[in-house]
Amino acid sequence: MASLHFDLETTAAGSKARAGVITTDHGKIHTPIFMPVGTVGSVKAVTQQQLKQDVNAQIILGNTYHLYLRPGTEVLEAAGGLHKFNRWDRPILTDSGGYQVFSLAANRKIKEEGVMFQSHIDGSRHLFSPESVMDIQRSIGADIIMAFDECPPYPSDYNYAKKSMELTHRWLDRCFDRLADTPDKYGYTQNLFPIVQGSTYKDLRTASCEYIASKNAAGNAIGGLSVGEPEEMMYDFTALCCDILPKEKPRYLMGVGTPWNILEGIDLGIDMFDCVMPTRNGRNGMLFTTQGVINIRNKKWASDFSPIDPGLPCEPSQYYSKAYLRHLFVADELLGLTLASIQNLSFYLWLVAEARQHIIAGDFKSWKAGFVEVVKQRL
Amino acid sequence: MASLHFDLETTAAGSKARAGVITTDHGKIHTPIFMPVGTVGSVKAVTQQQLKQDVNAQIILGNTYHLYLRPGTEVLEAAGGLHKFNRWDRPILTDSGGYQVFSLAANRKIKEEGVMFQSHIDGSRHLFSPESVMDIQRSIGADIIMAFDECPPYPSDYNYAKKSMELTHRWLDRCFDRLADTPDKYGYTQNLFPIVQGSTYKDLRTASCEYIASKNAAGNAIGGLSVGEPEEMMYDFTALCCDILPKEKPRYLMGVGTPWNILEGIDLGIDMFDCVMPTRNGRNGMLFTTQGVINIRNKKWASDFSPIDPGLPCEPSQYYSKAYLRHLFVADELLGLTLASIQNLSFYLWLVAEARQHIIAGDFKSWKAGFVEVVKQRL
Repeated sequence: MASLHFDLETTAAGSKARAGVITTDHGKIHTPIFMPVGTVGSVKAVTQQQLKQDVNAQIILGNTYHLYLRPGTEVLEAAGGLHKFNRWDRPILTDSGGYQVFSLAANRKIKEEGVMFQSHIDGSRHLFSPESVMDIQRSIGADIIMAFDECPPYPSDYNYAKKSMELTHRWLDRCFDRLADTPDKYGYTQNLFPIVQGSTYKDLRTASCEYIASKNAAGNAIGGLSVGEPEEMMYDFTALCCDILPKEKPRYLMGVGTPWNILEGIDLGIDMFDCVMPTRNGRNGMLFTTQGVINIRNKKWASDFSPIDPGLPCEPSQYYSKAYLRHLFVADELLGLTLASIQNLSFYLWLVAEARQHIIAGDFKSWKAGFVEVVKQRL
Repeated sequence: MASLHFDLETTAAGSKARAGVITTDHGKIHTPIFMPVGTVGSVKAVTQQQLKQDVNAQIILGNTYHLYLRPGTEVLEAAGGLHKFNRWDRPILTDSGGYQVFSLAANRKIKEEGVMFQSHIDGSRHLFSPESVMDIQRSIGADIIMAFDECPPYPSDYNYAKKSMELTHRWLDRCFDRLADTPDKYGYTQNLFPIVQGSTYKDLRTASCEYIASKNAAGNAIGGLSVGEPEEMMYDFTALCCDILPKEKPRYLMGVGTPWNILEGIDLGIDMFDCVMPTRNGRNGMLFTTQGVINIRNKKWASDFSPIDPGLPCEPSQYYSKAYLRHLFVADELLGLTLASIQNLSFYLWLVAEARQHIIAGDFKSWKAGFVEVVKQRL
């Protein structure tokens, strides 16, 4: 079928924010977009039906490291790929596993060839190389697949950051080579996004962006941010990258972030986001709403029978009350985890859809300035 | 509004199985019926939307002990009752809390007045009496409310069982008196079901059934079975009770049971069942299906891409595969708990609906004989 295609529709007045449409073999994605994280083939506590009907997810993530360990490529290939296995028939993006190998696995050893690591599940030894990670992502079959990169921690010293970036660039060439040598497995096209690294050094980030841009990929990602650096620094480096990465390709800021991070990222020219925050924080009782941030365990909600989020066009968030959701959390009921996850994901998807409308309407900048204050406030 | 009404439609040929319709102020219930257990106002891991659309639940249970402790009657009254609080607008039945006080609470002390106990949550001291339990059930506002009884353990010696039964009968009188003195709180009628006790002694069970029948209640329950006695003994005492309890009122066998227990109970003249088994066992990976019993964690399902239950008209059970559900359990994903709970509840509701059709069609007895073998087999 066809390679991923990006139609840039509008750039906002007085901002670098863009509205566009990404077309993949599993359907269209309206940008800017937030992608719910479905690490092992399931967005935690939410059914695929709820993801479509209540959350309005257009694309979800899977993770190569987790899916490789469980259920494994043999099962995924027998199923006909992840889309057939988890029955999500819209676009999927898989992370390369690089980030997880560095953060989750034990005794990882980085060499030119790749990374030797031990599984966090059973301690078994594995090698991830650019080639093996491309092969695994072929077996998973996501529409967008990510290059195998090293994500250096924050802070990293200049020499380490430079060597790591250069390794990531060499690995990227090997990813493209491997992909060129291996056909799509399931009759639709997979698209490789390279990842900018370079830690928090302007010359390295600039060099990395130029190298990544030179590959003329279907889309480009910015990695190595939102790893503990101050927010302003994250915004500065996002701006720097967006100025170099090509306008005519979607830009993906990996692992970001809070609702206000996302609004700032959109303002700087980012088209795609992912983060575990809405689901993870939701499971801890932290709700992101159209009115602000709620700790639903707080006693103040015990007799508040207003909807979870009156401003959100999401059925469960309209149907159930804050008091009921608080009760579910206090009583450790599983339903609380589901309703909070749906609320937060639905809010994130609503937020990027609102941003898109304001980009198109021409008032993104003023809307954002006001709404950042709303979503940040603690209720 | 109106008291609960039972229309007995058909009694099966060669069996005591019956098909009927219970009418309450929150709608009709087609019997025989299975009632999912929503202990603290939530059927664990399942949304109210899923309960309606996927499970086809007609009535759910709440538990007085749990709801009294959390969220408490103050919140429930402020909400306008449990129906408004959890947004389940079909019939609800509340257990009296007797069983939980005896099985969960610490340092319980039984006196003529009632039971002093300590909360399993925080050790706080409380008194449950027939009067207080009626008051709490008024605040919860279920359509069917249960008498406060003592449920003796199995085995119990004759003298203990006799004294306990007599206490349960005296408490029953106090329940009816209290109910007569207190109005419905929310504009619809609550109906008290008395509970037969008497342990495993025929004369006691007979005396208890006769006493309970003499109260001319809207429906009658059989308690104190499925507490560890052999299955055959449970069936024998169920048969004994059904022969005495009035035909024109619904009969509720409390806390039962496996799919085959339910088919046998229906055969003996039971109209209503509840049990935590479908949800609890589901959360442990044990599936009840139209083909038999499945341990979904078993390696044999790893690459079985057939639907969870091809024979069940339940969307999630048709949509997702056994291999995917197994993966969710092996990877400890919350979605597994939801899908297994929906499968099991949907199967239980399908099973009683099938039984009803066969009662009406006149071939219940032969269908049951064959199907008991199917549902019992391990796949």
